[in-house]
Amino acid sequence: MTSAITEQLLKAKKAKGITFTELEQLLGRDEVWIASVFYRQSTASPEEAEKLLTALGLDLALADELTTPPVKGCLEPVIPTDPLIYRFYEIMQVYGLPLKDVIQEKFGDGIMSAIDFTLDVDKVEDPKGDRVKVTMCGKFLAYKKW
Amino acid sequence: MTSAITEQLLKAKKAKGITFTELEQLLGRDEVWIASVFYRQSTASPEEAEKLLTALGLDLALADELTTPPVKGCLEPVIPTDPLIYRFYEIMQVYGLPLKDVIQEKFGDGIMSAIDFTLDVDKVEDPKGDRVKVTMCGKFLAYKKW
Amino acid sequence: MTSAITEQLLKAKKAKGITFTELEQLLGRDEVWIASVFYRQSTASPEEAEKLLTALGLDLALADELTTPPVKGCLEPVIPTDPLIYRFYEIMQVYGLPLKDVIQEKFGDGIMSAIDFTLDVDKVEDPKGDRVKVTMCGKFLAYKKW
Amino acid sequence: MTSAITEQLLKAKKAKGITFTELEQLLGRDEVWIASVFYRQSTASPEEAEKLLTALGLDLALADELTTPPVKGCLEPVIPTDPLIYRFYEIMQVYGLPLKDVIQEKFGDGIMSAIDFTLDVDKVEDPKGDRVKVTMCGKFLAYKKW
Amino acid sequence: MTSAITEQLLKAKKAKGITFTELEQLLGRDEVWIASVFYRQSTASPEEAEKLLTALGLDLALADELTTPPVKGCLEPVIPTDPLIYRFYEIMQVYGLPLKDVIQEKFGDGIMSAIDFTLDVDKVEDPKGDRVKVTMCGKFLAYKKW
Amino acid sequence: MTSAITEQLLKAKKAKGITFTELEQLLGRDEVWIASVFYRQSTASPEEAEKLLTALGLDLALADELTTPPVKGCLEPVIPTDPLIYRFYEIMQVYGLPLKDVIQEKFGDGIMSAIDFTLDVDKVEDPKGDRVKVTMCGKFLAYKKW
Amino acid sequence: MTSAITEQLLKAKKAKGITFTELEQLLGRDEVWIASVFYRQSTASPEEAEKLLTALGLDLALADELTTPPVKGCLEPVIPTDPLIYRFYEIMQVYGLPLKDVIQEKFGDGIMSAIDFTLDVDKVEDPKGDRVKVTMCGKFLAYKKW
Amino acid sequence: MTSAITEQLLKAKKAKGITFTELEQLLGRDEVWIASVFYRQSTASPEEAEKLLTALGLDLALADELTTPPVKGCLEPVIPTDPLIYRFYEIMQVYGLPLKDVIQEKFGDGIMSAIDFTLDVDKVEDPKGDRVKVTMCGKFLAYKKW
Amino acid sequence: MTSAITEQLLKAKKAKGITFTELEQLLGRDEVWIASVFYRQSTASPEEAEKLLTALGLDLALADELTTPPVKGCLEPVIPTDPLIYRFYEIMQVYGLPLKDVIQEKFGDGIMSAIDFTLDVDKVEDPKGDRVKVTMCGKFLAYKKW
Amino acid sequence: MTSAITEQLLKAKKAKGITFTELEQLLGRDEVWIASVFYRQSTASPEEAEKLLTALGLDLALADELTTPPVKGCLEPVIPTDPLIYRFYEIMQVYGLPLKDVIQEKFGDGIMSAIDFTLDVDKVEDPKGDRVKVTMCGKFLAYKKW
Repeated sequence: MTSAITEQLLKAKKAKGITFTELEQLLGRDEVWIASVFYRQSTASPEEAEKLLTALGLDLALADELTTPPVKGCLEPVIPTDPLIYRFYEIMQVYGLPLKDVIQEKFGDGIMSAIDFTLDVDKVEDPKGDRVKVTMCGKFLAYKKW
Repeated sequence: MTSAITEQLLKAKKAKGITFTELEQLLGRDEVWIASVFYRQSTASPEEAEKLLTALGLDLALADELTTPPVKGCLEPVIPTDPLIYRFYEIMQVYGLPLKDVIQEKFGDGIMSAIDFTLDVDKVEDPKGDRVKVTMCGKFLAYKKW
Repeated sequence: MTSAITEQLLKAKKAKGITFTELEQLLGRDEVWIASVFYRQSTASPEEAEKLLTALGLDLALADELTTPPVKGCLEPVIPTDPLIYRFYEIMQVYGLPLKDVIQEKFGDGIMSAIDFTLDVDKVEDPKGDRVKVTMCGKFLAYKKW
Repeated sequence: MTSAITEQLLKAKKAKGITFTELEQLLGRDEVWIASVFYRQSTASPEEAEKLLTALGLDLALADELTTPPVKGCLEPVIPTDPLIYRFYEIMQVYGLPLKDVIQEKFGDGIMSAIDFTLDVDKVEDPKGDRVKVTMCGKFLAYKKW
Repeated sequence: MTSAITEQLLKAKKAKGITFTELEQLLGRDEVWIASVFYRQSTASPEEAEKLLTALGLDLALADELTTPPVKGCLEPVIPTDPLIYRFYEIMQVYGLPLKDVIQEKFGDGIMSAIDFTLDVDKVEDPKGDRVKVTMCGKFLAYKKW
Repeated sequence: MTSAITEQLLKAKKAKGITFTELEQLLGRDEVWIASVFYRQSTASPEEAEKLLTALGLDLALADELTTPPVKGCLEPVIPTDPLIYRFYEIMQVYGLPLKDVIQEKFGDGIMSAIDFTLDVDKVEDPKGDRVKVTMCGKFLAYKKW
Repeated sequence: MTSAITEQLLKAKKAKGITFTELEQLLGRDEVWIASVFYRQSTASPEEAEKLLTALGLDLALADELTTPPVKGCLEPVIPTDPLIYRFYEIMQVYGLPLKDVIQEKFGDGIMSAIDFTLDVDKVEDPKGDRVKVTMCGKFLAYKKW
Repeated sequence: MTSAITEQLLKAKKAKGITFTELEQLLGRDEVWIASVFYRQSTASPEEAEKLLTALGLDLALADELTTPPVKGCLEPVIPTDPLIYRFYEIMQVYGLPLKDVIQEKFGDGIMSAIDFTLDVDKVEDPKGDRVKVTMCGKFLAYKKW
Repeated sequence: MTSAITEQLLKAKKAKGITFTELEQLLGRDEVWIASVFYRQSTASPEEAEKLLTALGLDLALADELTTPPVKGCLEPVIPTDPLIYRFYEIMQVYGLPLKDVIQEKFGDGIMSAIDFTLDVDKVEDPKGDRVKVTMCGKFLAYKKW
Repeated sequence: MTSAITEQLLKAKKAKGITFTELEQLLGRDEVWIASVFYRQSTASPEEAEKLLTALGLDLALADELTTPPVKGCLEPVIPTDPLIYRFYEIMQVYGLPLKDVIQEKFGDGIMSAIDFTLDVDKVEDPKGDRVKVTMCGKFLAYKKW
């Protein structure tokens, strides 16, 4: 599920006691994007890789791997069993078609890009129990006719 | 994939030329939630069902079905083939583990509820191409120890 | 696998003895795109729907369905059994990773869009046996960092 | 997913800083085909293997493996999760039946060979965003009757 | 699993008491190929369709469907449960890799075509129990390099 | 996919430069059967194992494994991705039901045994391209009534 | 899961109040085999079909279907959910490899035929709770070498 | 598929030249049950483990593992490919519903236990070919109503 | 997913405005068991069927179906998508092995019967939010040795 | 299926001869929850980890892993083959829809949380055979409307 470099990065982060939020400030990139570099889902630039490895006290030779476009997708089995991750599958099952209709009513036939795309996580404090806010924002791509 | 009542609702909506955004104003509920009633994923109250059926010019006897908790989940096959819906599966595949780490760093071991949960779609205008903004907001549920 | 409207369109086309290539000239759209309207994979504009239905001698009331964004993806089972279609799955299995490496070497981390995308089929005459030429051309989308 | 020899070849190529395009010129074979040798999907001749290993500064004893017909197909799970590769699955899902109809209208009942087959990748520069052009060209094989 | 026309053809054949072997003589095509027309896996020419329908005493209007290239593959689930058909899956499981090695040793890297292909069934009488002989003969297709 | 002993046998065979056809003459067994011993799908007698290991210059202690009935079936995933092997799956998909009908018309309700079974591969020279001939011959087993 | 004729047979049997055990005496065939004719898994002879239909008071025209070799296998999904039937899957999972070893130790490399095969169900009375005894008896088939 | 201890037990048994039938006499347990201990599907008592390990000349420290209730089920993939084991899957597919009907006619709604259960293998000599007899005997468990 | 009789029963119950709890008092059976009769998972006795149909004002002829042991298991796909039902799958995924260890430590090698089994649902009022209490109670079945 | 730390914990527990019930008293947490820490499904606090490791005589450095929120879900394949665990899948298949109806009748549209959730195992002594009692108690979460 996770490669050797992911284990190394997570271990070093734990040993240093650094949070993703702190890495966000060091690198000038969002914490979710940085976590996606840890899991080899995103490609760092040489500068980003160097900053990250330095912050974690790791060998700069690892930059080579972090700057190579990875083979993406990291969950097994195809329907994930981890409850936190599964909820996103459930949201897609329950709200997938409604979402499709609302998006297409607003934009026409097309999709929200998952490439030209950002993803943020915020904590919304609430006396009845804090809430997790996940914001996805992707470019609308209209189906081309030819 | 879609039941008979879903077809009826969608057809009536098209015939009336009403949008989900207009239904949002009529019912005082979010357009995504209303669309999820169309697809029999959410349960309307008798008043909501009546307002909706009246707006669409449909028989009020259909309220019976709309107010019964449905068996949820409406996509086939288990990995959806529709490109708009698939992108949410892809986001889960690519950003699932990073999301999990960031959420757990902020909140501890637990999940974002998909039940005590809201989902909004907004259009973000952008000269380089408009963007789809999807905001998910669910209560954080910590794993209980016993 | 194919909906009622698809059957109607194919039947009318056969009865009229019109080819996709002839429809290409009538509609000013590529034959593959037109075939994808037949299979409810692409959305026609009201004008395109009218022209198509007129050409096929069908009821213009069908335009309603042809202009609604469809739930896309039309193959069962998930690995198609039809030999012509399966070959595209095989090409992806055999040449998928090589393609990924070559595309990323030329463009960086990202994908070829399947939305802002065109697809053409040509017949290449060859004394040793004619060849099928399939040309796919999609916008390169670079992974956004945030 | 990738065998030991694939890792060795990719590592050596990165260390040497050679691109697939440069290897294309050295070997007189297309870059996609060469990449498919890297992933053990195609079989090199002894001369091609020797040229390739020499260019990469690797032990010529590896030629033995590169010249053996491999067990092909290299993606897991059966529906690939990598977004770049998945798009080809999506194209097959969305445009598979339309493609089949257009090809059979032009050629009769049969298939495009994936064996007597070539595959090219080109960069099409475009001010609105460069485009990836993938050209597949396979011999048409008509179904034999007997 | 089987379409309406298949049911009609099989029923008429049973009612007429004609065997596939007798149809072989009437049509001048092999009995397996004729059976594959029954199951809508092969495409008949107009003459073949007419002869077949006449022999079975069926409406010639059915010729239209029999002369259209079908979407092929007719077994569910993906691993067939019928014992006669399953044995061919088992042969592929048990002897697939040995077959691959022997074929490639004799021919080089490539495949046996399943398109330019014939399939015959013979009864081999044997005092210890008659034997079924299935002969497959397909053109060898060598992998093209480019 | 292939066990350690398979790798050893294939490597030794390559090093010695012996073909399966030559082994056929040495052992007095068909080349396909011998290849199936290599892949641990068939069980050799002690004499056959000794002859084979001697011919390949391997340690006779390996005979122990070659003479133990193996757990059979060696392909992953359940629908094989290798094009040569997949074609046999495709033949089963396309011609499975026609084959069943023709065999049962000739023999009654029952199957072709895949156990009391032989499998041969021949090269049929042909000016339009050589052909692969695969001959399967299995005992017909009628369903017993009781 | 069950075809129209199966429903008819079961309904008539219930209406007549006949048990499979009584049908066993009427037809001179085992009750399990008769039940397998009901589910279109076994093929009756014309005499057996006639006797059965007469006993159930059904139209003799149904004999046509009962005497045609069926496409066998009747469970969905591939791992059955019915607890009584699932236990046989579980027995195969838990005792499959032990059974294989014991059978092969007694008989050599081969299988127990599921075609030349009988299956009986008996009730074993026992004060601690009656027991179900299922006896399977199939011809041993040794793997042929060639 | 098989754990380290299974390999050790099978190897020692082969080296000693002991059969499961001989172990049956040494341990006073059925040979199939003993084979199921080998495959870590059944739990031995300390005395049984000691006797077994002594008979095989293995370290008594292994008793620890043999006396721990195992995670059961040992076949991959979910539909086994080994022909001997697959036949039991086929029997369930073909005779599953008939068996269910006959058992329920004799016993009412319930199941044959696969836990309070025995399984025997016998060789039935027969001039037309020896037969494998597999006898399963499980307690009938009636569905409790509450 | 649900058969015709299930729809009839649920509709009549809704029309009558009766709850499962009220049916529990009328029939002297637990509400979950009664609901399982509605879904054709449990078999009613003739008296229970009569009481139930009378209470719901339905035709007593339906008793025939309610008293026949059903083919059980009613969820599609194999991993259910409905969130309420999925949580039981999740509990099995997350707590399955811990449960197994604790049960086997208390009882030895064996299982909790799902046949000699009861299942109750209670509402536990709680100021922080009411709780659902599900109590499963099944006979322990020890693995028999033989 | 089980990670290295799980093996270490189980081994140490066996060596020390401590039961989960005894650990329950030492840690002041339920035995099932403690077992779920062993299988890396629940996260211990530093104090709990220290107490547990001390009780088992293991290196306190392992606390690091035990206090990190794990990727949860530990069963393979997706439908578990172990009979004890499978029974929970079967209960969900057979009683899933009835449970859903009863819970929703008592509580409205929503779910039983599997996060704010407890799980207890008790032994109920019974002269006819002891019974396993599994009590699940989760907060009811009503679907939020927005």
